[in-house]
Amino acid sequence: MGFTNGGHLLRLIFLSWFLLDCHARSTSVERSTYIVHMDKSQMPKAFASHQHWYSSTVDSIKSAGPTKSSSHQSTPSLVYTYDNAFHGFSAVLSRDELETLKKSPGFVSAYSDRTVTLDTTHTFEFLSLNPVTGLWPASDYGKDVIVGVIDTGIWPESKSFNDYGMTEIPTRWKGKCEEGQDFNSSLCNLKLIGARSFNKGVMAANPNITISMNSPRDTAGHGTHTSSTAAGNYVEGVSQFGYALGTARGVAPRARVAMYKVIWDEGRYASDVLAGMDQAVADGVDVISISMGFDDVPLYEDPIAIASFGAMENGVIVSSSAGNAGAFPGQLHNGIPWVLTVAAGSIDRWFAGTLTLGNGLTITGWTMFPARAWVIDLPIIYNKTLSACNSTELLSKVPYAIIICDNTGSFYRQLTYVSTSNAAAGIFISDDIFEFSDFSYPGVVISQKDALAVINYVESGNKPTASMKFQQTIVGTKPAPVVASYTSRGPAPSYPGIMKPDVMAPGSLVLAAWIPDDITGSIGSNIRLSSDYIMISGTSMACPHASGIAALLKGAHPEWSPAAIRSAMMTTASPADNTLNHIRDSGLDFKNASPLAMGAGQVDPNRALDPGLIYDATPQDYVNLLCYMNFTRNQILTITRSNSYNCSSPSPHLNYPSFIALYTNETGIIVQKFQRTVTNVGDGAATYKAKVSAPVGSVVTVWPETLTFEKKYEKQSYSLTIHYTSDKNGTETFGSLIWIEDGDKHAVRSPIVVSEVTNVWALVVNFPLIYNKTLSACNSTKLLSEAPYAVLICDDIGSFEDQIDCIFISNTAATIFISDDPLISEFKR
Amino acid sequence: MGFTNGGHLLRLIFLSWFLLDCHARSTSVERSTYIVHMDKSQMPKAFASHQHWYSSTVDSIKSAGPTKSSSHQSTPSLVYTYDNAFHGFSAVLSRDELETLKKSPGFVSAYSDRTVTLDTTHTFEFLSLNPVTGLWPASDYGKDVIVGVIDTGIWPESKSFNDYGMTEIPTRWKGKCEEGQDFNSSLCNLKLIGARSFNKGVMAANPNITISMNSPRDTAGHGTHTSSTAAGNYVEGVSQFGYALGTARGVAPRARVAMYKVIWDEGRYASDVLAGMDQAVADGVDVISISMGFDDVPLYEDPIAIASFGAMENGVIVSSSAGNAGAFPGQLHNGIPWVLTVAAGSIDRWFAGTLTLGNGLTITGWTMFPARAWVIDLPIIYNKTLSACNSTELLSKVPYAIIICDNTGSFYRQLTYVSTSNAAAGIFISDDIFEFSDFSYPGVVISQKDALAVINYVESGNKPTASMKFQQTIVGTKPAPVVASYTSRGPAPSYPGIMKPDVMAPGSLVLAAWIPDDITGSIGSNIRLSSDYIMISGTSMACPHASGIAALLKGAHPEWSPAAIRSAMMTTASPADNTLNHIRDSGLDFKNASPLAMGAGQVDPNRALDPGLIYDATPQDYVNLLCYMNFTRNQILTITRSNSYNCSSPSPHLNYPSFIALYTNETGIIVQKFQRTVTNVGDGAATYKAKVSAPVGSVVTVWPETLTFEKKYEKQSYSLTIHYTSDKNGTETFGSLIWIEDGDKHAVRSPIVVSEVTNVWALVVNFPLIYNKTLSACNSTKLLSEAPYAVLICDDIGSFEDQIDCIFISNTAATIFISDDPLISEFKR
Repeated sequence: MGFTNGGHLLRLIFLSWFLLDCHARSTSVERSTYIVHMDKSQMPKAFASHQHWYSSTVDSIKSAGPTKSSSHQSTPSLVYTYDNAFHGFSAVLSRDELETLKKSPGFVSAYSDRTVTLDTTHTFEFLSLNPVTGLWPASDYGKDVIVGVIDTGIWPESKSFNDYGMTEIPTRWKGKCEEGQDFNSSLCNLKLIGARSFNKGVMAANPNITISMNSPRDTAGHGTHTSSTAAGNYVEGVSQFGYALGTARGVAPRARVAMYKVIWDEGRYASDVLAGMDQAVADGVDVISISMGFDDVPLYEDPIAIASFGAMENGVIVSSSAGNAGAFPGQLHNGIPWVLTVAAGSIDRWFAGTLTLGNGLTITGWTMFPARAWVIDLPIIYNKTLSACNSTELLSKVPYAIIICDNTGSFYRQLTYVSTSNAAAGIFISDDIFEFSDFSYPGVVISQKDALAVINYVESGNKPTASMKFQQTIVGTKPAPVVASYTSRGPAPSYPGIMKPDVMAPGSLVLAAWIPDDITGSIGSNIRLSSDYIMISGTSMACPHASGIAALLKGAHPEWSPAAIRSAMMTTASPADNTLNHIRDSGLDFKNASPLAMGAGQVDPNRALDPGLIYDATPQDYVNLLCYMNFTRNQILTITRSNSYNCSSPSPHLNYPSFIALYTNETGIIVQKFQRTVTNVGDGAATYKAKVSAPVGSVVTVWPETLTFEKKYEKQSYSLTIHYTSDKNGTETFGSLIWIEDGDKHAVRSPIVVSEVTNVWALVVNFPLIYNKTLSACNSTKLLSEAPYAVLICDDIGSFEDQIDCIFISNTAATIFISDDPLISEFKR
Repeated sequence: MGFTNGGHLLRLIFLSWFLLDCHARSTSVERSTYIVHMDKSQMPKAFASHQHWYSSTVDSIKSAGPTKSSSHQSTPSLVYTYDNAFHGFSAVLSRDELETLKKSPGFVSAYSDRTVTLDTTHTFEFLSLNPVTGLWPASDYGKDVIVGVIDTGIWPESKSFNDYGMTEIPTRWKGKCEEGQDFNSSLCNLKLIGARSFNKGVMAANPNITISMNSPRDTAGHGTHTSSTAAGNYVEGVSQFGYALGTARGVAPRARVAMYKVIWDEGRYASDVLAGMDQAVADGVDVISISMGFDDVPLYEDPIAIASFGAMENGVIVSSSAGNAGAFPGQLHNGIPWVLTVAAGSIDRWFAGTLTLGNGLTITGWTMFPARAWVIDLPIIYNKTLSACNSTELLSKVPYAIIICDNTGSFYRQLTYVSTSNAAAGIFISDDIFEFSDFSYPGVVISQKDALAVINYVESGNKPTASMKFQQTIVGTKPAPVVASYTSRGPAPSYPGIMKPDVMAPGSLVLAAWIPDDITGSIGSNIRLSSDYIMISGTSMACPHASGIAALLKGAHPEWSPAAIRSAMMTTASPADNTLNHIRDSGLDFKNASPLAMGAGQVDPNRALDPGLIYDATPQDYVNLLCYMNFTRNQILTITRSNSYNCSSPSPHLNYPSFIALYTNETGIIVQKFQRTVTNVGDGAATYKAKVSAPVGSVVTVWPETLTFEKKYEKQSYSLTIHYTSDKNGTETFGSLIWIEDGDKHAVRSPIVVSEVTNVWALVVNFPLIYNKTLSACNSTKLLSEAPYAVLICDDIGSFEDQIDCIFISNTAATIFISDDPLISEFKR
């Protein structure tokens, strides 16, 4: 939860959460919660159920004596048992007890419960869904689809969860509306069909704590916002203090919502997240939307990776947020090969104030002052005594007027000074792009360029005056979308070999439902405001957009696997903004955005309905990838939970609709080969031709260049090879492969990235990297083909071109060539 | 414009209008504007048109020398010519020139141009119009009806004047959309079909003035509000700062609006009002809505009386406001026998804040703080040092908390002190009923009774806390309607013999469109707010409700005369509130409201559609009444403008659907007889029986008691006699006559009032009062029958009962009996 919207107060609230977590951890030194994965196939027949087995297992490892503090639990205790997303349990254990447990039959792995990071800031929305054509009518607005939201709970009374127009709940639904504090089961309805809460983890970690809202009720707002974004019903006339006024609706307005509250004011623990996801799968959700992630964990210790593997096996697509770590590469979370990882972008909407000078000049500036302030034909004052706007005393000496504040880089402080003065309004000068919504006094922020015109007028004018208008919502701004500066960038630290994020969705200043009793704005120094709908930004807001689209696709194509749904969203996503130029990245000086920022591009739900070709993947395909990583058997089993999968075919060639080639700072040239299989989901026979746009400095070869399908569901395979010579300055380069159907009926696009492996995430990279003298000459196809799928280092021996030819026909996944030759120009052809 | 909504600032604006008027008058001493009525039948044949005749007339009276000041017009000049509402012109003349003019052929009368009073305050609305049954569907929502609004202009861009769903303009329309400052003709559409402005009068009176907005554009808001109330289109999601949120719509949402701007920031003159009404009739409006009136003028000098007579002759119903002079009797304006005079009532809606104490107690109080303030679980402070709430310094020393302010009778000052302190919110104690909407800081006003519970909690509690909710709109409050304290009361000073006002309509806190650039609220001490929709109160807001209903009735019954439309509204109006008790009067300690406050009662549009019987009246009927008044021929001609009417049948028995009997403080017993004729507008044959509820202290006799109609449009006459013995304490008494159709299909109700003639309005009463010794014995039916319709004084001679018998069968209109006998008990039987 990196950014918040409510100014200092909200920030304090979030800060106190973190303090609580720290405090909780320090009081539970002796025992802590571990998440334990078990091999259910080894369960002795004597046990009637997995619960019995697990509790018996925990009972059997009781340590000899009581712990020091009587306030702590004196014996190991079971927190949750899990049976759907994965097999196992969480338990409060001491280190000794953990060691004992590791010797128990069926034990696979265990790791400490950990704290999850929420992804929130301020945000928008713009998807071309419409009732006439495309995904909405095709899916009946997601009517029979159930979206399970793993979050902070829900405010069931929000108008977004009214069930007007909703039909009967699908009979397959096994979920429940749990009673609890300020929450009775009658609060669920045909829209909000389930609500459960999971806090055994937080309670186990903090034995003395009292849960302040022990029910699925949301006390944070985040879960209410994400749920209403994914599948809220229609609500007319909503706005945040007059901004973005309109009819709110979820992306899948007829889909159902089931809330799994796993995040608490008192703490946020992996064990609870796992329990919620486990239950969601058991209850029968179709989509899991999870706007949070665990940072810096390997896949086999990432609860979301683990639980989502089980979800994926059950046909449940998990849509997750990339995180709000910003533009530094490799900070992304949820870079899990079997989930959808969603980046955040802006929307073509802006909240503005209009400044009209007495001479008629009109300037549009940023404001979100939360009321219709009257500022008409007032004197406008600019003088050097005042213009720092850092003294209430000085500002209060001038008459009721509009004050111009110079660009001293302290806008927030200036706003505070102006708000405690006698000023009518402020004009603040800044070229920064603001996305906050707490603008506590009448005023606008204008650019330095515009400020020149204003100051000219004021200094040359006789009795200069100005007027301001507020609560203006400008739609159609360009360019949009722009990659949000906060959205986390790939490559994924947990496994950079699959390009992440997957797609971008609207994440900045998204208007959605909120809890009614939160502070979400302010006026002046003392008046605090709340709102039932607010705009916040973050990948947390982008994720439920993608979840809603996934729900619509599930409604339109119930037979599609999670991989197929993700493939449809990725291959139809747009790399272009509304100026028809490449989407730009606000985190990188508005340069063209890399797929490592926005994935395949901005999701396009209507095109995703009919993608032409699909890159599908089975659970075994993911296992093959896991087997390829240098994980232990137990690490793999922690994720797959089943011995029925085997590691006989380890492969980096997960059938993914994107391509990433990695190099290090030291290496010269790389060649990487990818194998893919596409399924024709068009209407019948079709012929596709490859169109490649190679990353700068690379040669990309696709074979075959034409794919011919005789009928629907027919599969065809191809390989793609990237030849790249590092420019050694760490620049990512990117391009694309588009399979274009004859007649241009479908265009199936995959992004291609060539990226440096940075230190940040290389720490947790799990590529088998092979360097041995037998192979490093890279001059024998036979030898090379016997090596496992791995990254091979080729010595600077002999001809680079010859080495490439050898590698080309081998089984090698990727190759790092060592060379000082100036080959770049050749690779730019 | 008695009350305003925007607090001190708005009041200053209005004050400056008045100052302008005074100033204007003082600078035009030598010449001023006169409104001149001419007998058009005397126009010499030489003149091609009335304009030629009038301009020639003015030219002919040029005085000998120039006036003293060169800045003033040096010759008499024509301002307007009028030819529809009445015949004549207005001209800037000196006193000498006026005297010359009086000798011109065709001259009828002349009087000084005068200033008009607007009727505004803060207000509401609740009429049971619905799309399923009744007047809306029957009239097609007023589709082909044109409402001419005489007011301050219009804001054409207001969403209320969008023409979505409007059909083509009726071809009979002859109006125009006049170009002008910030107003081009393309601003008119299928909803706003005409817009004109009239300011020659204000310019003539203020020769040096510049009109600041020389076009039909509204710079005051009043005309935009009244127009949208009468016939605004549907607009979703409007509110005043979150209060009264909903879909705005006019009473006749499909009727057309034509604006006649006659009120200017620079002044408000009768000549302009006359010009606007004259043009409206010429353009072909069906209804004139005029929310303003002239105080303390006889009918023959009241421009609205004069212009509305012409309108009435043309079948145009004029709906006007009773004024906002308050509960003192006899202060009403527009008490014109041929217009509809509308009083203002409240609606069943309240704007509230909820105060919830830490102990769970919830109290609802008045607030209109214009934002969703967050006040949750804050400390609540009550101590004697602070509770006067009269020191910012003291209030700023306490922590961020809710402060309780004692009932010191200075709520506004307390609010100001709290708003400049560090307080989070205030609890103000008062039993007053507030209707203002400028509530500049978070807080609620609670009753003294509720305050006891709050103070008890605070004083006994440990760390007392409270929460507040704002922007709450409570619908269904009881009792409603209540007569507004501000609404002007009858009897009408200009002619008390016709009971006025006629009906009551919603006038308090009515939400309607406003100009966007006005200050309509505030937050704290420095932030001023504006709103496109605001709630204001006044008979100005009640009038357009009645105008809208009149438009719907005109749409449903195009053949009905203005008198028939008024009759339908009056005889179906309800004297009961939503508790089914008699409507109460908030201006008179919530006693049962007199018809002199509310007319026949609250308008009931759906019942008015099918009134059963109608009290119709022709222009000649009104002339007969005028002839009965002791007016000169020219005074009558000033109103009727035509010699085609004759005074051969002077009569007080205007066929009006209400009854008023008057007495003076000195007189004892009165007997007054009324003659009426009703027209059956039911479906066919019908029999009605009289049901009388006599005023306390009166005996009311109706003859015949049964009226039998064979077919539709058949007429039947009856007489009603009131015998009253004054209780000498000036109390009004009231009752009703209801003609009830067999089977209760229709109930045709008329209010009956017995009222003292007070000094206030007796000054301008025009009753012929006869006292001569030949008649005053009141013992000869023959003698009495030869006297004209007059008020006869009967001496205290012989038997009172015998006198009554004589009077009963005479032509006498009313009788004042002089007696000291204790007869009251007998008359109470």
